Amino acid sequence: MKKIGILGTGNVGRTYAAKFIALDYEVMIGTRNVPEKLADNLKDAYGSPLFSEWHASNQKVRLGTFKEAVAFGEIILNATKGINSINALKMADINDLNGKILIDIANPLDFSKGMPPSLLPELTNTNSLGEEIQKTFPDVKVVKTLNTMWAGLMVNPAMIGGGDHTVFICGNDSGSKGEVKEILKLFGWKDSNIFDLGDISSSRGTEMYLPLWLRIFGAKNNGAFNIKIVS
Amino acid sequence: MKKIGILGTGNVGRTYAAKFIALDYEVMIGTRNVPEKLADNLKDAYGSPLFSEWHASNQKVRLGTFKEAVAFGEIILNATKGINSINALKMADINDLNGKILIDIANPLDFSKGMPPSLLPELTNTNSLGEEIQKTFPDVKVVKTLNTMWAGLMVNPAMIGGGDHTVFICGNDSGSKGEVKEILKLFGWKDSNIFDLGDISSSRGTEMYLPLWLRIFGAKNNGAFNIKIVS
Repeated sequence: MKKIGILGTGNVGRTYAAKFIALDYEVMIGTRNVPEKLADNLKDAYGSPLFSEWHASNQKVRLGTFKEAVAFGEIILNATKGINSINALKMADINDLNGKILIDIANPLDFSKGMPPSLLPELTNTNSLGEEIQKTFPDVKVVKTLNTMWAGLMVNPAMIGGGDHTVFICGNDSGSKGEVKEILKLFGWKDSNIFDLGDISSSRGTEMYLPLWLRIFGAKNNGAFNIKIVS
Repeated sequence: MKKIGILGTGNVGRTYAAKFIALDYEVMIGTRNVPEKLADNLKDAYGSPLFSEWHASNQKVRLGTFKEAVAFGEIILNATKGINSINALKMADINDLNGKILIDIANPLDFSKGMPPSLLPELTNTNSLGEEIQKTFPDVKVVKTLNTMWAGLMVNPAMIGGGDHTVFICGNDSGSKGEVKEILKLFGWKDSNIFDLGDISSSRGTEMYLPLWLRIFGAKNNGAFNIKIVS
């Protein structure tokens, strides 16, 4: 069985963990501090179940530290908050990280300047989280994808519009993008709707779409939407 | 006949001028310096006709300064480069500008940091060109729209996908947005595809989409595409 290490125990990380289990992967979800995470009794803003409750009903998902999840996974998925991503990755042993595919689905959202969030100034416009991760870990194969939509849709595109809408992908290594495309297809994405933007600098494009996404979300008050390229 | 003043003599301004003439508007296109513009014999990067050649075959379009075009129009359309927009508008008599609808279709592109362009740092993320125009001219009714696509599509959405794709609109004044929606419908936009994002601060969203647009354009090498919201 293939092994994936997922960093981040929020709704997004949980959604992927459950999906990969359903796809017969072995999954370890990583967090900063395991005992603290299991003891956490603060509900998030979305009213999600406590992590301990979620984990009790998803027992096939192994739980570990960021370091352990990176060591465990043949592929790593970054579902941490963008503001924490680099630090979470730095907790790994670099030898466990190097050479692996890192699927980066995070966005560098900055909640410090009011709602809706803006992007972290140092990670936008002439930089991006995807690029910063690639620069910080040059021997990791960073593939940015799926960061332009609500988590529920990422792993279940058929939920809306017959699954006929667009997911972007970018990264410096073609072979790694090819492997991630196969995972996208397992999620239900049609090959014709997977749009390759080029190298990892295109993360600027998909991350800077977030402010538009947030405004559309604000107007619709519902995250079950995506964009489709029409031409 | 209705009168529109268009600021900017590039491809975008010309496209709108020709379209509004076809729609039986009276049109004045404004530029910084009329004799200089008519004498200009430098081709642009797209190989467009010289302005004088274009104007010779579009003689119904009046030509004037920015100030004259603002005085002439009942509605003003900003098709200048984003980096020049505020200065172009400042050349108008404020009494000619106040109270009018200003349709802002410009983007604050910054070509100084390489290609594809980024956005002007002072006009992105926690600000935008649309907001900056509104702050600078508080008694103008700024409506931001159409800035998320190639000029040819703006005035002819039926060119692709049966015209079934999305145009965004935002602004602080509902009545002005309603008037601009009627113009969008004259261009061929379906009411159901005109997506109202809210107040002018949503310009951040539509302007920050440009880096993604530029990457899609780079991958397709063709500007005849747009996005459609699927839900």
